[in-house]
Amino acid sequence: MTEPPTVSLDFRVRYSETDQMGVVYHANYLVWCEIARTELIRRRGAPYAELERQGIFLAVADATVRYHAPARYDDMIRAVSWVEDVRSRTVTFGYRILRIDEAGAAPPERLASAQTRLIALDGDSRPRRLPPDLIHALQNA
Amino acid sequence: MTEPPTVSLDFRVRYSETDQMGVVYHANYLVWCEIARTELIRRRGAPYAELERQGIFLAVADATVRYHAPARYDDMIRAVSWVEDVRSRTVTFGYRILRIDEAGAAPPERLASAQTRLIALDGDSRPRRLPPDLIHALQNA
Amino acid sequence: MTEPPTVSLDFRVRYSETDQMGVVYHANYLVWCEIARTELIRRRGAPYAELERQGIFLAVADATVRYHAPARYDDMIRAVSWVEDVRSRTVTFGYRILRIDEAGAAPPERLASAQTRLIALDGDSRPRRLPPDLIHALQNA
Amino acid sequence: MTEPPTVSLDFRVRYSETDQMGVVYHANYLVWCEIARTELIRRRGAPYAELERQGIFLAVADATVRYHAPARYDDMIRAVSWVEDVRSRTVTFGYRILRIDEAGAAPPERLASAQTRLIALDGDSRPRRLPPDLIHALQNA
Repeated sequence: MTEPPTVSLDFRVRYSETDQMGVVYHANYLVWCEIARTELIRRRGAPYAELERQGIFLAVADATVRYHAPARYDDMIRAVSWVEDVRSRTVTFGYRILRIDEAGAAPPERLASAQTRLIALDGDSRPRRLPPDLIHALQNA
Repeated sequence: MTEPPTVSLDFRVRYSETDQMGVVYHANYLVWCEIARTELIRRRGAPYAELERQGIFLAVADATVRYHAPARYDDMIRAVSWVEDVRSRTVTFGYRILRIDEAGAAPPERLASAQTRLIALDGDSRPRRLPPDLIHALQNA
Repeated sequence: MTEPPTVSLDFRVRYSETDQMGVVYHANYLVWCEIARTELIRRRGAPYAELERQGIFLAVADATVRYHAPARYDDMIRAVSWVEDVRSRTVTFGYRILRIDEAGAAPPERLASAQTRLIALDGDSRPRRLPPDLIHALQNA
Repeated sequence: MTEPPTVSLDFRVRYSETDQMGVVYHANYLVWCEIARTELIRRRGAPYAELERQGIFLAVADATVRYHAPARYDDMIRAVSWVEDVRSRTVTFGYRILRIDEAGAAPPERLASAQTRLIALDGDSRPRRLPPDLIHALQNA
């Protein structure tokens, strides 16, 4: 059994993403998942901005996040994404959110795990099929 | 078998909460769940701001959201929350996000369902027990 | 010289609006200004959602905020808005953000003052004239 | 007369930053200014996270933004910041927000100009003096 190929992206925690508990506000992890997801789609050759111009909108149908350790302001974050499942009208992505030690002395620390299922919609918000070439690109076969 | 008592709060969708798909950005539903959750805690006599002053922080440990229909700018939203489970160190809340017909002609429409499990932390972010009176208030016994 | 008529709206500070300094993140005051501005437009008979359906978009051309005292989580906020100036293609709004004492013992405390100038755009993001009835409604003559 | 030295940072527009007008929501430019400002402070040898640990908080006292052209989803943004003025208790930053042509064929396009004045606070939110070495670092003399 092989691991699915992943795409990852590094960025720094913004001050605006913290809350008064002194850590990143929990809803922002879904934003980070999306950054990783759109980067994955881009690298598979189908930039999401281009998909929307073609009338293919991917709307989040469900989302699950498990929080393991808090991210803090100025942390260097690595958002990792992969495709878990592709069907005719939906695609499921998996995510890991990690904290990177910039000095390179420690291994990345797992902050959160997440999964989102997206459903394809047309420009009028009606369910539609994913085009075959997009399915192929997402399967990365 | 009885339904748990719920607390609900109505508010209008803000323009800042929409995205370019013309609907509310999916991560904002977690913000709405939190508004309903803190209102529930307030009405049970333990305002969350007061809990933090006592060194009791409730951090989201996991969250699940299912999106049924999109909320749009200026919609009147009803966020409904209830306690699903209380343990010595965690409390699980359930949520329904509804759209209200302001004219009163149609029944509320279900937009999303969600669940979050929160873990009690002390001021140094270490797990701690929920105080007995808070457990009692959350159980609403 | 008379004061312009104002519209105000009360709401509670959300946890998501705080940052790790323990106060409301400064950019959120622009969100609150917008809530007051759209409420003013609604009460003058021209809901902003309806304007957009008619192809009239009001885009912020410049914004100035002065911060006098910080808002905190769970504070009850009053956002006050009024029209400062209406021209053929732009409208300038003024704002005061206040903290309300829910017990009613103290007068409202001024937290911020702001001003935004909005420019009318059509559906293709080109400048356009404000319709006469909208100008009239905004002038509240 | 010489231009002040600037610091700039490039990043991509997030989907969460757009609104239903199809462009970046105006309050987010203040977030981008902050990213550039904290990067400037970091490169001058005084990471803001470290300043807060030393009990030096920089709170925004006033902010002005002029919007020239809209940023859109997936645009590559360059946020440029410089120090305009340093006094014993305040520091004023200037900003330019640009859109970068990733192909390198066109010059950067100016999207917004901004200015924020920050006031130094201690851990109890009382005004305090900026430490001499921080003043020196900000002046970049």
